[in-house]
Amino acid sequence: MTGQNNSKVNLDNLPRTVELTRDGDGRAVFSFVDQTRLPDDLVRVETGDWRRVVQGIKSLEVRGAPAIGIAGAAALALWAINRETSDGDTSMGSSYGEYLSAVADEIVRARPTAVNLSWAVGCTSGVARRMMAEGSDAPVVARALFTHVKSMEREDEEVNRRLGAAGEPLVPERARVLTHCNAGSLATAFFGTALGIVYTAAEKGKIARVYADETRPVNQGARLTSWELSRAGIPVTVICDDMAASLMARGEVDVILVGADRVCANGDVANKIGTYGLAVLAHYHDIPLYVAAPSSTIDMSLERGEQIPIEERDPTEIMSDPPAGVALWNPAFDVTPAALVTGIVTDRGVFAPNELRMRLSDGRA
Amino acid sequence: MTGQNNSKVNLDNLPRTVELTRDGDGRAVFSFVDQTRLPDDLVRVETGDWRRVVQGIKSLEVRGAPAIGIAGAAALALWAINRETSDGDTSMGSSYGEYLSAVADEIVRARPTAVNLSWAVGCTSGVARRMMAEGSDAPVVARALFTHVKSMEREDEEVNRRLGAAGEPLVPERARVLTHCNAGSLATAFFGTALGIVYTAAEKGKIARVYADETRPVNQGARLTSWELSRAGIPVTVICDDMAASLMARGEVDVILVGADRVCANGDVANKIGTYGLAVLAHYHDIPLYVAAPSSTIDMSLERGEQIPIEERDPTEIMSDPPAGVALWNPAFDVTPAALVTGIVTDRGVFAPNELRMRLSDGRA
Repeated sequence: MTGQNNSKVNLDNLPRTVELTRDGDGRAVFSFVDQTRLPDDLVRVETGDWRRVVQGIKSLEVRGAPAIGIAGAAALALWAINRETSDGDTSMGSSYGEYLSAVADEIVRARPTAVNLSWAVGCTSGVARRMMAEGSDAPVVARALFTHVKSMEREDEEVNRRLGAAGEPLVPERARVLTHCNAGSLATAFFGTALGIVYTAAEKGKIARVYADETRPVNQGARLTSWELSRAGIPVTVICDDMAASLMARGEVDVILVGADRVCANGDVANKIGTYGLAVLAHYHDIPLYVAAPSSTIDMSLERGEQIPIEERDPTEIMSDPPAGVALWNPAFDVTPAALVTGIVTDRGVFAPNELRMRLSDGRA
Repeated sequence: MTGQNNSKVNLDNLPRTVELTRDGDGRAVFSFVDQTRLPDDLVRVETGDWRRVVQGIKSLEVRGAPAIGIAGAAALALWAINRETSDGDTSMGSSYGEYLSAVADEIVRARPTAVNLSWAVGCTSGVARRMMAEGSDAPVVARALFTHVKSMEREDEEVNRRLGAAGEPLVPERARVLTHCNAGSLATAFFGTALGIVYTAAEKGKIARVYADETRPVNQGARLTSWELSRAGIPVTVICDDMAASLMARGEVDVILVGADRVCANGDVANKIGTYGLAVLAHYHDIPLYVAAPSSTIDMSLERGEQIPIEERDPTEIMSDPPAGVALWNPAFDVTPAALVTGIVTDRGVFAPNELRMRLSDGRA
């Protein structure tokens, strides 16, 4: 099922996932890859409407914890920048702060589990509030938010590249990697987290093959991970989620790399539904499982995994037309206890889950 | 997520899955529920052509280890009965035995993993050979094969009802049962194996809810198990395969009941892909996992699970149109080692996997 990979890794074939720009009139435009259209069509959505971005986050057009953090921040910037032209509203009275809060709240509510969204939006509205407190007027605040989001985009890629370099030594030669969902370039501004480790290892010729769990019900593995890895020139095989255990039993998996939507202070990890089961299987088969967790996913304010809100999504994601009387249960995430995580790969290095609090004691990684 | 079930179990709403009959002209007709059309449409295929039955077995129109055993036997009977009218061939020379072997071989090759198919076809051709050796002519052999298949149908249901009665005491009051694939009435002539235990327990008011794994890639759980349980009046919730671990961790699963395509002498079990992973998860969460194994699935001729041939099916079952360059792996079954099986429920009682050889020492259960 596997073989040596002699092909070149080529990240030039991957799009930027999320990007804030300005048009000729100075209006802000946020563009993102519509991930519901992949792998069939590579389509970018371009919008100046912050509510359209919120809709895109809810509908999974833009998904992946780091990417939705940036999208949320960009949505707030769109509001601040484009309100003058859209609404003709250049006021900077007390209502500005109220609107800012209301908009930020609506953005954060779009997805509850990934901490990146509330962190990125909180951080961005904090920039606005500090400038308001210093007496800046609305256009100045708007320009600052644009700059802030652009730096988040850049920093996201830099963090991912550092995370990839930190994780690369964990990948053995001729590695067969198993991954779940998409913690790739498509989940970030660029480069990816778990797949960032894969790309870094592949540049050193260490990746024999990546097995991508299909990842029901939204099929991020089958649709997104397979698409980006094959475009980057990395051998990839899609399996159904219920085949992962057999693959492990056959000795075909050397290491498991997954992303994270939120990591608690004690090292418990919320990630795409199915991650917990993989971690139990990895434990049973004595296969290391590493969680790629960029700074933005680590939440030192939560002590334990039980405190993480788990989003339940529309059951029609599982079946659009179930037989009469049949119920469906569709939790989008699960929590993997720290004891089942071999290591947490951050942009500051690789830590045992129980080291996180001590090593990242400034509160954020 | 669960509640007490006060509704009545009603098996009258379930169709007979496979049935051999004769038409007015004495031709044999085999009819089966086309399971690729469920849950949207309940359609019966009726055919007098044995090759059409083989096609139905290959395409999963008829599936489930006990049901394909009967279908295979019926296909052989169709050949023996209808060759006279179809081919005008009433000869009983040496070519009859050669044809019989060739037809039987072609039927058995339709699916390699379930032992029922080769057992049922071997048993049926054995009936024909004994009668030929005794000097019976072709019409007499044909009539005997019809009678033989009808008795297999009856015996299948009787075995399932005994198996259900044997397994019922394993189900606690207000049980939340997890099952995988479809080991239900639709997998047998009638009543089912793992779901036969559920029906028997439900008649005693013991079933609070059944959780049905979707069971990728063919979705037998989402399409078939949910359909037959809801028609029978049993509360059922479909989950994706990668959600089962979370359900167990939440304490929502009291017992896991699955079927079997082949059970070896040492208690290793081949069943639908995903069963092995469930067994590892059950072991980790200390939840009992019972395998419902009617006589026809127990193969004392195989010592260990590694000897079971595992069918790999068309990868397009996973994705019809994968991204360019993306590979797919589609094993239809996996092997659960005896050590992970709490008990094997047969029509002769419940056994520990390592007791099978001693308790069923006549070779077949």
